[in-house]
Amino acid sequence: MVKQEDDFKKVISHAKEYGYVFQSSEIYDGLSAVYDYAQNGAELKKNIREYWWKAMVQLNDNIVGLDSAIFMHPTVWKASGHVDAFNDPLIDNKDSKKRYRADVLVEDYTAKIEAKIDKEVAKAEKRFGDAFDKKQFLETNPRVVGYQEQINTILKRLGKSLENEDLVDVKNLIEELEIACPLSGSRNWTDVKQFNLMFGTKLGASADSAMDLYLRPETAQGIFVNFLNVQKSGRMKIPFGIAQVGKAFRNEIVARQFIFRQREFEQMEMQFFIRPGSQKEWYETWKEKRMAWHLSLGMGPENYRFHDHEKLAHYADAAADIEFKFPFGFKELEGIHSRTDFDLGSHEKYSGKKLQYFDPELNESYVPYVVETSIGLDRMFLAVFSNSLVEEELDNNTTRTVLKLPAVLAPMKAAVLPLVKKDGLPELAQEIIDDLKWDFNVVYDEKDAVGRRYRRQDANGTPFCITVDHQSLEDKTVTIRHRDTMEQQRVAISEVKAIIHKEVDMKSWLKRME
Amino acid sequence: MVKQEDDFKKVISHAKEYGYVFQSSEIYDGLSAVYDYAQNGAELKKNIREYWWKAMVQLNDNIVGLDSAIFMHPTVWKASGHVDAFNDPLIDNKDSKKRYRADVLVEDYTAKIEAKIDKEVAKAEKRFGDAFDKKQFLETNPRVVGYQEQINTILKRLGKSLENEDLVDVKNLIEELEIACPLSGSRNWTDVKQFNLMFGTKLGASADSAMDLYLRPETAQGIFVNFLNVQKSGRMKIPFGIAQVGKAFRNEIVARQFIFRQREFEQMEMQFFIRPGSQKEWYETWKEKRMAWHLSLGMGPENYRFHDHEKLAHYADAAADIEFKFPFGFKELEGIHSRTDFDLGSHEKYSGKKLQYFDPELNESYVPYVVETSIGLDRMFLAVFSNSLVEEELDNNTTRTVLKLPAVLAPMKAAVLPLVKKDGLPELAQEIIDDLKWDFNVVYDEKDAVGRRYRRQDANGTPFCITVDHQSLEDKTVTIRHRDTMEQQRVAISEVKAIIHKEVDMKSWLKRME
Repeated sequence: MVKQEDDFKKVISHAKEYGYVFQSSEIYDGLSAVYDYAQNGAELKKNIREYWWKAMVQLNDNIVGLDSAIFMHPTVWKASGHVDAFNDPLIDNKDSKKRYRADVLVEDYTAKIEAKIDKEVAKAEKRFGDAFDKKQFLETNPRVVGYQEQINTILKRLGKSLENEDLVDVKNLIEELEIACPLSGSRNWTDVKQFNLMFGTKLGASADSAMDLYLRPETAQGIFVNFLNVQKSGRMKIPFGIAQVGKAFRNEIVARQFIFRQREFEQMEMQFFIRPGSQKEWYETWKEKRMAWHLSLGMGPENYRFHDHEKLAHYADAAADIEFKFPFGFKELEGIHSRTDFDLGSHEKYSGKKLQYFDPELNESYVPYVVETSIGLDRMFLAVFSNSLVEEELDNNTTRTVLKLPAVLAPMKAAVLPLVKKDGLPELAQEIIDDLKWDFNVVYDEKDAVGRRYRRQDANGTPFCITVDHQSLEDKTVTIRHRDTMEQQRVAISEVKAIIHKEVDMKSWLKRME
Repeated sequence: MVKQEDDFKKVISHAKEYGYVFQSSEIYDGLSAVYDYAQNGAELKKNIREYWWKAMVQLNDNIVGLDSAIFMHPTVWKASGHVDAFNDPLIDNKDSKKRYRADVLVEDYTAKIEAKIDKEVAKAEKRFGDAFDKKQFLETNPRVVGYQEQINTILKRLGKSLENEDLVDVKNLIEELEIACPLSGSRNWTDVKQFNLMFGTKLGASADSAMDLYLRPETAQGIFVNFLNVQKSGRMKIPFGIAQVGKAFRNEIVARQFIFRQREFEQMEMQFFIRPGSQKEWYETWKEKRMAWHLSLGMGPENYRFHDHEKLAHYADAAADIEFKFPFGFKELEGIHSRTDFDLGSHEKYSGKKLQYFDPELNESYVPYVVETSIGLDRMFLAVFSNSLVEEELDNNTTRTVLKLPAVLAPMKAAVLPLVKKDGLPELAQEIIDDLKWDFNVVYDEKDAVGRRYRRQDANGTPFCITVDHQSLEDKTVTIRHRDTMEQQRVAISEVKAIIHKEVDMKSWLKRME
């Protein structure tokens, strides 16, 4: 599978070539860290969204949906803590006037030391050949050990300073390391300052009455402010959940790694409202349930792991990530957070309104506790896409590029291919499409030799190719070819629909969670 | 049906009470002209979106989807004309410092004259009783005729001044009519100025490098800038279309009529790329196709009409609206626009990149012409919701409130009701849910007498109620009640799924378009 750092470029170029992801506003030379989902990408993203929604909302009696607006009252973000605490530490170079994330400057510095280690390793490898023991070398070569110690000390000090919000020491560290502006080479730095990551805008036209708004940095708060309205109008009983999918925005200074960290992104979040005291139990339950959802897609248990947070956000009493093995290593894909009553309690304080639930069994009112599951749709897209992109060596010593997307998520479920462009084969192919299209996304392809069309559909991620040939005219059969195995079956045209249904229907994939 | 102006309030309160639409940030006293879709509303909106997507993308070989970002390069909006021409005429009152839309001030003035006419009519109606002929009265009563003439003259002059961008005359009109500030009563006005409706924000943190961005005021431009990438990677041949659904934002000064005109809203747009010269034909085709889509929902042909534009936008050579009979009268629901090569041509100019298609049949390259279909998802929601809300007189002299949503769009497809909360009926009900939930959104309801539960599901818009009683335990049958007819059938539990599928499956509703 294409997972090495070096192969990440292949993922990005394949995404463009096959109509999955384009750079935003490319004809205007792009907009940094913003991407558009192209014809196949839009369908893959839509299918992931639907797979999550069905699992979370449709299959759970006690979870309902919500679709709250991106615009919210500005006080929401005071109550949530985002106005005060949603910051990055920034530093300006006085000569170049360029601004940087202070922690990234330091991390880039350690990356350079890392590169020196790699160089030493390469040199030694060359010198010792097959006899080279990398592990031993890393542990005993004095220069390498020194470099590693240097990196550890820097990162430890950086982590501690950031944790204590000691921005003076972050600057001291930059000065002690003599880090220079990559652009100007100057070491003439300003102090480190916190910069808020929310995008601002203004509502209304009048200078007097205009209201400062933020683009929401997370979808969760839309759920919290609607908690009581949903509970009452939906007659919900605790425990219950509210789920939503929607856009969020963060003004990241350093946005890298393709669609992994974008300035505009889509979240799939569920807030589960529970009795105070039951949070530990529900936190564990949701960790399990969410992992089962991931595993149901069949992308390999070895590609997932839990990472429990030691350092907790201001609102949480427990937190874990589900990490996925991206082409650049294990990184956060989803977060499960025990958010306590922080958010609802804070909205009570700021709004002056009661946000309590009367529990008929306990015969008392309380502010519910919350366990959240939060997954980035774009990250999930990248996980599925990069994991599915495979270069296979075939028996005849050729290779094929195949996008082995879980069939339930594939943008196009089948391609219908007339063997030749004459003799009524295109017409019969079209008839088959006109029947299948009511159930699935299907595509017609008549250009090039059929082998090339198979390869094209492999690279597109299409699970089935249905080939119409002269025999089809006689006995109403076609060849159906399976993307992953390349096996071909001769089947009656009347059977095709059921064969596809069996492999692609969401229902049967979701049942694998059980 | 609830369609009179007076009944619009019922629509709004029903939408809140039954979990369809809430005011945004209500606990913070709301955010003007921004709304959240609640648990049922989120599902209804999602179903409308899917019904459009299937009809436009899945069923059309030559239309593909797209999901482009809200953020785009700022030059896009210069090329599209929005920076220069997307304005509202505003006027400030110097005493109150309040800002108004000049045209709305004038329209509010005519609304007051309209109210005088209504008063005269009411007086005459009272005087003449059954013998009152309203039509004749409106045509012959001198005072009423005078009022009407006044209104016509005002609106004609306003329309002309706006068309000619003669803002001086708009101010003159306000002064001649002696319109006062509703807040202060003052007639001390500034000049009328154009105000741009796009929301602005800033990308990036550095004062130097920050880029002024706009929140997109329409989704169409995301399609145009991606046109060539989609065409090439998707090997599309003209004619072909690109469809997308997404949020757009307009800083409306006067945003009224509930979700009809919001500051944040969702569009469903399709741009169809064609040979120059064929636009008239495709424009007519898409008018027909889109009307067929609307009619397939069975909300009554009498509620739709075409309105052809006489005055055309800068980019169009033909334009029509599909108008729907909202509670406040016939208003635009969808627009079909022949946009010529304006957009692609303009992006060629501003980007310096070629946006041309090589037509293998004509053996020449050209900038394609475009026919657009553009529908507001929120408006479609309001059309469906308000049209479906009915108060019915029943035989026993009671009334029931029922939300007769097209079953394909209903948020919940069925409610499962145990007749009593004991004897194993809740358990059997739950078994039925555990089977149905893989196919549909279903809800369990055990509270109150079954008659009250039927009424609740009627008001919720749920097409089917499935009642589990003691007989069910014996012979595995249930009662299935149809929302619209209130008819009840006794059927085997094993038949329930097929009965629901038959009524709610999108496929069969979409086939009505043909």
